[in-house]
Amino acid sequence: MQIALKEIAKLVNGKIVGDSDITISSLAKIDEAKNSELTFLYLPAYEKFFANTKASAILVKPEFNKSRNDITYIEVEEPDKAFSALIMHFFSPSFYLKGIDKTASIDSSAELGTNVALGKNVVLSAGCKIGSNVKIFHNTVLLENVEIGSDALIFQNVSIREDCKLGNRVIVHPGTVIGSDGFGYKQDEKGVYQKIPQIGNVIIEDDVEIGANVTIDRAAIGSTIIKKGVKIDNLVQIAHNVVVDENSVMSAQVGISGSTKIGKNCILAGQVGIVGHIEIADGTILTAQSGVSKSIRKPGYYFGSPVKELKTAKLIEAHSRNLPDYYKRITQLEEEVKMLKEKLKNKS
Amino acid sequence: MQIALKEIAKLVNGKIVGDSDITISSLAKIDEAKNSELTFLYLPAYEKFFANTKASAILVKPEFNKSRNDITYIEVEEPDKAFSALIMHFFSPSFYLKGIDKTASIDSSAELGTNVALGKNVVLSAGCKIGSNVKIFHNTVLLENVEIGSDALIFQNVSIREDCKLGNRVIVHPGTVIGSDGFGYKQDEKGVYQKIPQIGNVIIEDDVEIGANVTIDRAAIGSTIIKKGVKIDNLVQIAHNVVVDENSVMSAQVGISGSTKIGKNCILAGQVGIVGHIEIADGTILTAQSGVSKSIRKPGYYFGSPVKELKTAKLIEAHSRNLPDYYKRITQLEEEVKMLKEKLKNKS
Amino acid sequence: MQIALKEIAKLVNGKIVGDSDITISSLAKIDEAKNSELTFLYLPAYEKFFANTKASAILVKPEFNKSRNDITYIEVEEPDKAFSALIMHFFSPSFYLKGIDKTASIDSSAELGTNVALGKNVVLSAGCKIGSNVKIFHNTVLLENVEIGSDALIFQNVSIREDCKLGNRVIVHPGTVIGSDGFGYKQDEKGVYQKIPQIGNVIIEDDVEIGANVTIDRAAIGSTIIKKGVKIDNLVQIAHNVVVDENSVMSAQVGISGSTKIGKNCILAGQVGIVGHIEIADGTILTAQSGVSKSIRKPGYYFGSPVKELKTAKLIEAHSRNLPDYYKRITQLEEEVKMLKEKLKNKS
Repeated sequence: MQIALKEIAKLVNGKIVGDSDITISSLAKIDEAKNSELTFLYLPAYEKFFANTKASAILVKPEFNKSRNDITYIEVEEPDKAFSALIMHFFSPSFYLKGIDKTASIDSSAELGTNVALGKNVVLSAGCKIGSNVKIFHNTVLLENVEIGSDALIFQNVSIREDCKLGNRVIVHPGTVIGSDGFGYKQDEKGVYQKIPQIGNVIIEDDVEIGANVTIDRAAIGSTIIKKGVKIDNLVQIAHNVVVDENSVMSAQVGISGSTKIGKNCILAGQVGIVGHIEIADGTILTAQSGVSKSIRKPGYYFGSPVKELKTAKLIEAHSRNLPDYYKRITQLEEEVKMLKEKLKNKS
Repeated sequence: MQIALKEIAKLVNGKIVGDSDITISSLAKIDEAKNSELTFLYLPAYEKFFANTKASAILVKPEFNKSRNDITYIEVEEPDKAFSALIMHFFSPSFYLKGIDKTASIDSSAELGTNVALGKNVVLSAGCKIGSNVKIFHNTVLLENVEIGSDALIFQNVSIREDCKLGNRVIVHPGTVIGSDGFGYKQDEKGVYQKIPQIGNVIIEDDVEIGANVTIDRAAIGSTIIKKGVKIDNLVQIAHNVVVDENSVMSAQVGISGSTKIGKNCILAGQVGIVGHIEIADGTILTAQSGVSKSIRKPGYYFGSPVKELKTAKLIEAHSRNLPDYYKRITQLEEEVKMLKEKLKNKS
Repeated sequence: MQIALKEIAKLVNGKIVGDSDITISSLAKIDEAKNSELTFLYLPAYEKFFANTKASAILVKPEFNKSRNDITYIEVEEPDKAFSALIMHFFSPSFYLKGIDKTASIDSSAELGTNVALGKNVVLSAGCKIGSNVKIFHNTVLLENVEIGSDALIFQNVSIREDCKLGNRVIVHPGTVIGSDGFGYKQDEKGVYQKIPQIGNVIIEDDVEIGANVTIDRAAIGSTIIKKGVKIDNLVQIAHNVVVDENSVMSAQVGISGSTKIGKNCILAGQVGIVGHIEIADGTILTAQSGVSKSIRKPGYYFGSPVKELKTAKLIEAHSRNLPDYYKRITQLEEEVKMLKEKLKNKS
């Protein structure tokens, strides 16, 4: 592939500084770019790679110090977003899966839209409804009455249990389980755990993306709901009856316990844990490994286990690091007070 | 479905207050219930939904303030347990999987009890023994000599490696791996990790339930053992040679390292981590995200990383929050002591 | 199997103390060993089992107090390593999988070395290249252009997406996902997350072992790289563009965020979390549940969230436990200073 740099500059609405007649063969990270490739510079931590990058062209902010003459610059306000836009324009991945493989098992009562692709050994059980342009990769299993909207992408080895509903343009990565039983028991008179049937389902709305090896449990009764535009990273656990509101994102290994409600536009960083039966306000940002045991009513940044407002957590952390010093000062004060008392006594 | 309220009241041994002639179409949560449905009220946090619930009937404690006249009450001592009992009575889920699918692969040396159901592409390798009334869903793979007791339910895309044994009424949710190699290496003289063969197996006793995408490693030598009645939530890691004793439960994303023994009737909340080669006493309760690096000899509640008794952890947490104040008070004391010293000096 | 004890002693270069004419039927842990079995004693915590072990022979250090006469001792400097060597010598597991199953689906453009074994329903897509002596177990799916070196072992229900490359002698346990999309989005002007195409791949070098239900995301651009000899336990998350350098090991449920570089010979204990875009120095040891938000430049032991050098973390932890005492001492000091001030005032 050879793309004229002028075409690229036009696409990102950027200004060329340097040789504008070159062509670009591909896009690459600054520390890996080869000759004829385009890269970008956004995070200060990567500026150290500028001096030696072999890229032929680079997206930079207008104010960037253009100290090299052997590279062409494209000035844009947001180099990272421009780079992403170029990736989307030139490299949007296409998947080879086409048509319905003869080893796919489709129950006679299942309904398929147009242009559906089913991989090898895919199982569509009774009552499944699959929208148009959906691709379901090899060895993925849908139990009874699963519905999937149009333009969805379901990768291999995915398990979706009975009665779960997925919207349009949903993406599910390999190994993910949707609709497993919630973790619900009651102890009998002997203290033995008896299973409470989990008779609800899972509803995944439009434009949700779910990572690999994620688990989303069906509701005990009613629905576990993941609303429009939510993005879920790998190995996340979402328990029964959880509701995640629109446009929230959660990083890998987050765990949300039963019946908890996550608001709109929240960000849950990696390994965050949230207990059951609480509510997290719209716009809450939980930094990595936070542990939340009470509802959060006020949006903002939070950290720690148990969680605190980030600035409080940082203040306590700073004081904690000073504890050995505080200990010395308390001991010193005690000695001085003892001396003062003696002196005063001697004076009397 | 239409069930007479009188029949329901009789089943839960409850007393009807209000119109006792109505019928119920289904069960639902208080904030989601529709007309003609039965709901329940147990947690105070859900009382706010009472004023507007559309349910036709509600399970409540006898002392509940019955302020609405347009709803029928059933008084019971434990509304949550009564509701669970009704779910179990009316909605115990039945799975459509029946018979042995023609795409299932059964080695000629495998033994099957009566009334076994095997889904599509299930693999039973040489020497497998499957009890009566077992259902194994699509694409699940059992390697050599796996044994499963009767009435077990193994969902789709489950992997069970050679020589593992599962008891009666065991439930395994999708994507779970039983019998993967333990994480065991020794460093050679160059510091390179050499694999120690993991030649043991996993034994899962009767009435154990295992969530989705769980991993339970085979023993290095001997057995990793999950005893009778243990309940394991999604994405839990159980390492080689761990023993979990009867009737213990662990929530999602718990991790237990090699050779550790968990006692009877323990509760491990979400994301708890436990190091290897230690013992946790019967009846220990570890709250969420706790990190345990030493044996726990005394039952009770524990929290924190490193873990402490819960009341100790709460006390330290409370004092930590006061650290900025303590810092001010130490500084203030230093100033006052300095002044006192000077005053005393001046007096001499 | 009957092995002469003399043969065993010779293999581990040990000295027999006691009856040297016995034979051994198997190897077992000290608390589980039966008559005619060989065990070993290494960790002091297991010495309590010595008095009652039924083993016929035991590997011990030369200085061990040989108080029993009914057991034969083999003296070696490192009983654990000797025991591992014996397991490797006598019990190296052999897998029954042989040949290419007729249900395996192999694209006509795929290339296979000699002596490849493919289980049931394995999918090799277009352009795949598989080295000699590779075993791929049932229901594992490789998308387009996946390459695997020779002597690799890929267990069942594994998902490897397009363009990923695995080296020689790589082991991948069941349920693991390699090459899922990185978690990359940009917010549009309305705050809605738009997916950034993830067009890179994953490169796994020689002698890497990857546990069960692990997730390793493909790079946004370029490669996520796991270098030679790295060992990864179950349920670990490795995000896009991460590089893990040679001979590092990570325990279960570790999570590493995007573009972070882990050095050589690092040890990451269970449930460690590391943010994106940082570097961890060669030889760094992160103890369990540590949370790392900044680069670590100096090798050594680290603990805590946020992480600190282990000795600092332990010091702060010790002082934290004393906080209730420090509080009392501050309060006491305040009272004494108040009294002193009053006394001094009265004196004036």
